[in-house]
Amino acid sequence: MDVNGKSYRTIWLKPDQPEVIQVIDQRHLPHRFVIEDLTTVDEVAIAIKEMHVRGAGVIGASAGYGMYLAALEAKAQGKFEVQEFLEAMGAKLRQTRPTAVNLEWAINRQLEAIKPLGNDIEAIIEKTLAVAGAIALEDVQLCKSIGEHGFELIKNLSEQKQGDTVNILTHCNAGWLGCVDNGTATSPIYEAHRKGLKVHVWVDETRPRNQGARLTAWELGQQGVPHTVIPDNVGGHLMQHGMVDIVIVGSDRTSYTGDVANKIGTYLKALAAKDNNIPFYVALTYSAFDWGISDGVKQIPIEQRDATEVKYIKGLKDGEIIEVLLTPENSPAANYGFDVTPARLITGLITDRGVCPATAEGIKNLYPDFSPFVV
Amino acid sequence: MDVNGKSYRTIWLKPDQPEVIQVIDQRHLPHRFVIEDLTTVDEVAIAIKEMHVRGAGVIGASAGYGMYLAALEAKAQGKFEVQEFLEAMGAKLRQTRPTAVNLEWAINRQLEAIKPLGNDIEAIIEKTLAVAGAIALEDVQLCKSIGEHGFELIKNLSEQKQGDTVNILTHCNAGWLGCVDNGTATSPIYEAHRKGLKVHVWVDETRPRNQGARLTAWELGQQGVPHTVIPDNVGGHLMQHGMVDIVIVGSDRTSYTGDVANKIGTYLKALAAKDNNIPFYVALTYSAFDWGISDGVKQIPIEQRDATEVKYIKGLKDGEIIEVLLTPENSPAANYGFDVTPARLITGLITDRGVCPATAEGIKNLYPDFSPFVV
Repeated sequence: MDVNGKSYRTIWLKPDQPEVIQVIDQRHLPHRFVIEDLTTVDEVAIAIKEMHVRGAGVIGASAGYGMYLAALEAKAQGKFEVQEFLEAMGAKLRQTRPTAVNLEWAINRQLEAIKPLGNDIEAIIEKTLAVAGAIALEDVQLCKSIGEHGFELIKNLSEQKQGDTVNILTHCNAGWLGCVDNGTATSPIYEAHRKGLKVHVWVDETRPRNQGARLTAWELGQQGVPHTVIPDNVGGHLMQHGMVDIVIVGSDRTSYTGDVANKIGTYLKALAAKDNNIPFYVALTYSAFDWGISDGVKQIPIEQRDATEVKYIKGLKDGEIIEVLLTPENSPAANYGFDVTPARLITGLITDRGVCPATAEGIKNLYPDFSPFVV
Repeated sequence: MDVNGKSYRTIWLKPDQPEVIQVIDQRHLPHRFVIEDLTTVDEVAIAIKEMHVRGAGVIGASAGYGMYLAALEAKAQGKFEVQEFLEAMGAKLRQTRPTAVNLEWAINRQLEAIKPLGNDIEAIIEKTLAVAGAIALEDVQLCKSIGEHGFELIKNLSEQKQGDTVNILTHCNAGWLGCVDNGTATSPIYEAHRKGLKVHVWVDETRPRNQGARLTAWELGQQGVPHTVIPDNVGGHLMQHGMVDIVIVGSDRTSYTGDVANKIGTYLKALAAKDNNIPFYVALTYSAFDWGISDGVKQIPIEQRDATEVKYIKGLKDGEIIEVLLTPENSPAANYGFDVTPARLITGLITDRGVCPATAEGIKNLYPDFSPFVV
């Protein structure tokens, strides 16, 4: 998508230096646009853990490229047991963010792909690079498909409103910054905007990391999409007063029964949408499904992060990004990264294969070829 | 309550200078404890509007004392039409915060009290001082009563948990800082803590003004009550996982049918409490009822404040309180101060006269002597 009029993805191979991965370091947005070089698995692990990159899609793509860097490291260090080394590097990457299932999925895909190659280091380097590229490219295409399917929902609302502005509420950043391009939740919005429908986005600021206020607002602004930042507390009031036509969020992990783990606070918006008969949709690629989990609330692991992310916040002052303390110095704080929205609160899932109800049956109809549906 | 071991209220007459009102200027908390002198109606209006003081009880008390300062001004300016002047000053104060009904209530109470006094300025000064003092003292006592009634609820939960810690979630600051002393929502908590029950408070940070993270956390810490600050997004997750036993919040205006206007975001917590069968209580004094409103969602006016309160935030850096920008500079933001929680989501009201269901009948049983129940 566009950054100051120039087209970008969130991750790519450095031009003329294919042993270096480049990513947009999202920690500095919206105040500064910083590109970071990643040259080792450890750097990739830090980038994921410390949220230089975040969001299901780009976490998956970063893990994919991380495994390629692992292969390069195996060669540089003269490892003989390449498979074993990559498994260990995969385990290291896997630990960085416990809730995001794309992480696991991308690492497993790499490990599967190299299994037939024994310890042939050159073949493994070539394969991991190809798979990483495929994961990234696939994410772009999957997100584009989500955009096309979700567009129909917005178009219907626009028609119901006789062309009046469709107000969409979103939480966190399931935008192109959280993917490789296009985004999941934002993809239908960009599609509608491109096709000339009037849309306006209520952007939940999304405490404590403010992915909405920092990232979603920024990327919508860069594409010229009308939007308004709101505190996370506001959505319910807007819904009570007819100011939201549809909610679209992303997902970090969705059970095959339709329970959705997404950024903390999503559940509260789903409750409010239900209470006000407002359609609540979750946009996700097939890689965000967890085919082994039936009860999302009970089974999906919820990441707990450091209390300092709640107690301190970063912002811009006189051109510099600085961090300030918000709470009494001695007050403890808790920092749960995600919550789980039960399927019963979700109107539907917008996937790369179409829109379906958030039920095992609905998901099975679109993905009959995936476990646990494959008998 | 205690501040560094010394007992305070939020508003009082300056010792040896009874023509000056002193308040705790809450904007600087938790980082600095600042006392402000208020000497004119305009200063009181600014203090209320700019939230040097905020919270139903202390807004009411400030308005009460503001009318006393108005009487002093009438004298100093040699006004003949004192009643008219005080009505104009009352109108000025009334405009500062549209949602808080205590404001109106205190001003009306003063205007009623002076009606029989014609333009006798000395009598009016004496009367407004007496009424202001009565409003403040009454608030202290009403909050104390709320504490005693609400204590029983916590005691029951403590017994059900066989003495284990009772986890209470609260939103915003309905603590002693929002009243004259004790607080409304916090009063039962302080009572339980004083009586040796184990309690722990989940403190919603309460964006955008962070009254929870700044004020509630600070005052709980000062009284030694165990607490944890959480982003507003977290409560639903905690409730899903059995980590909240009861929710207690305050109210800025409650319809006689039990609909509760309170700080923006309260409605979302009420939905989550309902969804998880967790008792949701609202603590309020009789002065927070609006006896003329039957449908809270439709009829209670909701204050909209400046977008800068969402886009910028203040915090401590190297001993100084500074303000930083959180969003893209050009992104608009919306700032609704309150939302309304429909009575159907509320387990009960903790009032100065006891606990009742959030229904017209329940409220009437406790307040048969108030309009609209008085025929």
